[in-house]
Amino acid sequence: MNVALLGYGRIGQAVVALAARPDVRACLRRARVDVRWVSALVRDLDRPRTGPPVPLTTIASGTVDADVVVELLGGAEPARSLVQAALRARVPVVTANKTLVARHGAELRALAARQRTAFVYEAAVLAGVPFLGSLARRPVIASARRFTGILNGTSHFVTTAVERGATLAGALDRARTLGYAEPDSTADTSGRDAAEKLAILLHAGGCEHAAPDDFPRLPLDVLNHDLISGARRLGGTIKPVVVADLDLPHAGAWVGPAFVPTDHPLAHLDGVTNVLQLTTIAGGVVTFTGPGAGPDATALTVIDDVIEAATGRGGPRASCGFSGARTDVTRALRTPPTAGWLLEIRHERERDPRAVARQLSAISVPPLQICAHAGAVLARTIPAPWKVVEHALQAFRAQGSTVVALPCLV
Amino acid sequence: MNVALLGYGRIGQAVVALAARPDVRACLRRARVDVRWVSALVRDLDRPRTGPPVPLTTIASGTVDADVVVELLGGAEPARSLVQAALRARVPVVTANKTLVARHGAELRALAARQRTAFVYEAAVLAGVPFLGSLARRPVIASARRFTGILNGTSHFVTTAVERGATLAGALDRARTLGYAEPDSTADTSGRDAAEKLAILLHAGGCEHAAPDDFPRLPLDVLNHDLISGARRLGGTIKPVVVADLDLPHAGAWVGPAFVPTDHPLAHLDGVTNVLQLTTIAGGVVTFTGPGAGPDATALTVIDDVIEAATGRGGPRASCGFSGARTDVTRALRTPPTAGWLLEIRHERERDPRAVARQLSAISVPPLQICAHAGAVLARTIPAPWKVVEHALQAFRAQGSTVVALPCLV
Repeated sequence: MNVALLGYGRIGQAVVALAARPDVRACLRRARVDVRWVSALVRDLDRPRTGPPVPLTTIASGTVDADVVVELLGGAEPARSLVQAALRARVPVVTANKTLVARHGAELRALAARQRTAFVYEAAVLAGVPFLGSLARRPVIASARRFTGILNGTSHFVTTAVERGATLAGALDRARTLGYAEPDSTADTSGRDAAEKLAILLHAGGCEHAAPDDFPRLPLDVLNHDLISGARRLGGTIKPVVVADLDLPHAGAWVGPAFVPTDHPLAHLDGVTNVLQLTTIAGGVVTFTGPGAGPDATALTVIDDVIEAATGRGGPRASCGFSGARTDVTRALRTPPTAGWLLEIRHERERDPRAVARQLSAISVPPLQICAHAGAVLARTIPAPWKVVEHALQAFRAQGSTVVALPCLV
Repeated sequence: MNVALLGYGRIGQAVVALAARPDVRACLRRARVDVRWVSALVRDLDRPRTGPPVPLTTIASGTVDADVVVELLGGAEPARSLVQAALRARVPVVTANKTLVARHGAELRALAARQRTAFVYEAAVLAGVPFLGSLARRPVIASARRFTGILNGTSHFVTTAVERGATLAGALDRARTLGYAEPDSTADTSGRDAAEKLAILLHAGGCEHAAPDDFPRLPLDVLNHDLISGARRLGGTIKPVVVADLDLPHAGAWVGPAFVPTDHPLAHLDGVTNVLQLTTIAGGVVTFTGPGAGPDATALTVIDDVIEAATGRGGPRASCGFSGARTDVTRALRTPPTAGWLLEIRHERERDPRAVARQLSAISVPPLQICAHAGAVLARTIPAPWKVVEHALQAFRAQGSTVVALPCLV
């Protein structure tokens, strides 16, 4: 089984190293998959690499002769063109590239289906936890009523550090030192990475045209210790989440910090753990938890993907679920969901929480809780549609206040 | 697609009712699976049933003509013979019957593989959470180093109720009233149900000959409020768990109550939630959480199984993982694992904890914590192999004490 790697960075080297372990070799042998790493496409042949030696190349043409292609380049191009070329040649493709799958998954799945070959990407979301294959094969559970999750480990680590007293910049520096964040962490802090993962989930759930750039996104910049300690006073904490509520008329999406009540399962996780909660059409909540990134966890998943692709078990994956009905839902995901809201209202001259409460009540978002905290007023409102909340934010901003609004998970 | 049901009790009726919902019908249509419930095998035609009408029969012969058979009888026979007959006729089989899969899974998987037909049982463990199919297809993650879980909802509900002050008998009565427990709850309280589920996991993990009756099992009868409040004093709680530690030389298994430290993820769950933690060979911990039983959650999984079986995606499932090496591991699962232990030592005449501590130290299981609680001495020991713990238990019993030993999760 000739496997061609596209990219030989941290993940690629971890894949080859893990596959050489005796216990993993026993798995491969038993699955009758005898892997030979025939080539790794790289940009720079001379960059120092500590992983096992693999024939390196800067020429991409060899991929169509391989038995399986493993794409670990990241980003849309040249990954997309190379994956297309492989699939056109009926070579099964494994990828861990969420940008590729989020932005071009529909087209690549369709191509793979036409060519009757495998296009497998279990590591694209919750890299260490196999569940996307289940959703692809099982349309009833995939037709979720709601997805809620923490899908970006860097943001989660940073939020936990800020909760413990660090500044945002200090926490990001520490994440870089520990190898959790890239030198440029914009994809993490802006929510782009989490939005791409949410799009992949939604495609599996039948919202075929959900696009990562369409979801409402609040960057991590709003985070500071005062906001989190204030959330504690109101009985919760702040977590960097994704939410997609797929039940009309409440439907909506959110990518960014949110208020999580202490009794919510997401409140108890920390560090770099990733988690996905799926609410089924029967009303049950199914939760997948585990490492969301990291070379070893990702490598393990990639090797299992190679086995699925090589043994024909990775079969073509269609998105499934409610075909017609979900077009309206997809449109609704451009707006935040109907939810309770945590409002942080900050005014030059400190304001009386009771006056703020009266104003909120007058504009149809009465607070359930309200307090003065660290020079701001913090309020937790009743559930309200985004239109009403937006109107309230405008009213406060017109008075010269700065306002941050975070949805409250239930 | 003619589907024959074997059994038409609560689960069967929930399956047919759920499949009739417009949203589920849309899923089935999209997957090109047009289900017709052609028959349901029952013992008693006249028993009152509230579910949708399905042609009932007491004669089993029709199953070999169906396109898919859904077995929901429970128990080993006649389920085993009927499933064998269907597979021999190359009819794909879906089952939610953990007794059948735990005790005859190897033989039925082999038969299905020979006949190139599907034998699918996603609802047998964590009924509402799809993950067994992933383990069956993905040998590297399936080759776990450890499984830890709460796999029996009834025991979990009862333990939570006892923690809140109920008696064991009172909690069981309440579980029956709420429909969580059968009139005869022996399978739940004895650990038999959880042991069967653990066996299914271990088969997926390459321990093909793990047998549910071989695991060390402690029935729920040892539970009482004093034990749990004592555990609280030592920084944890009691949960009804399964553990299989597959790393020699520490390997071992446990089915029954265990001490769970407060900072352990399993300590935060309650009610009837089920959970499985899988430690991978790369050291990561992957967790699956969700409803472990209940007609609706199980029915949803069964319908997805029917789709997998009908579309050929359910393919034959081999157990995978370390073939040779795991024979020794399987043997080790007849003994509890090396672990820290919570000991409750009760003596007619109340004993001084310091004296007990000295005695424990003298027999190589020094306590990390010890206290007098509700007329007993409670100790949490250092990690020790079962042989040493067993010797300690014998020493205390020889002095006329009654001793309960529970492993401590880490």
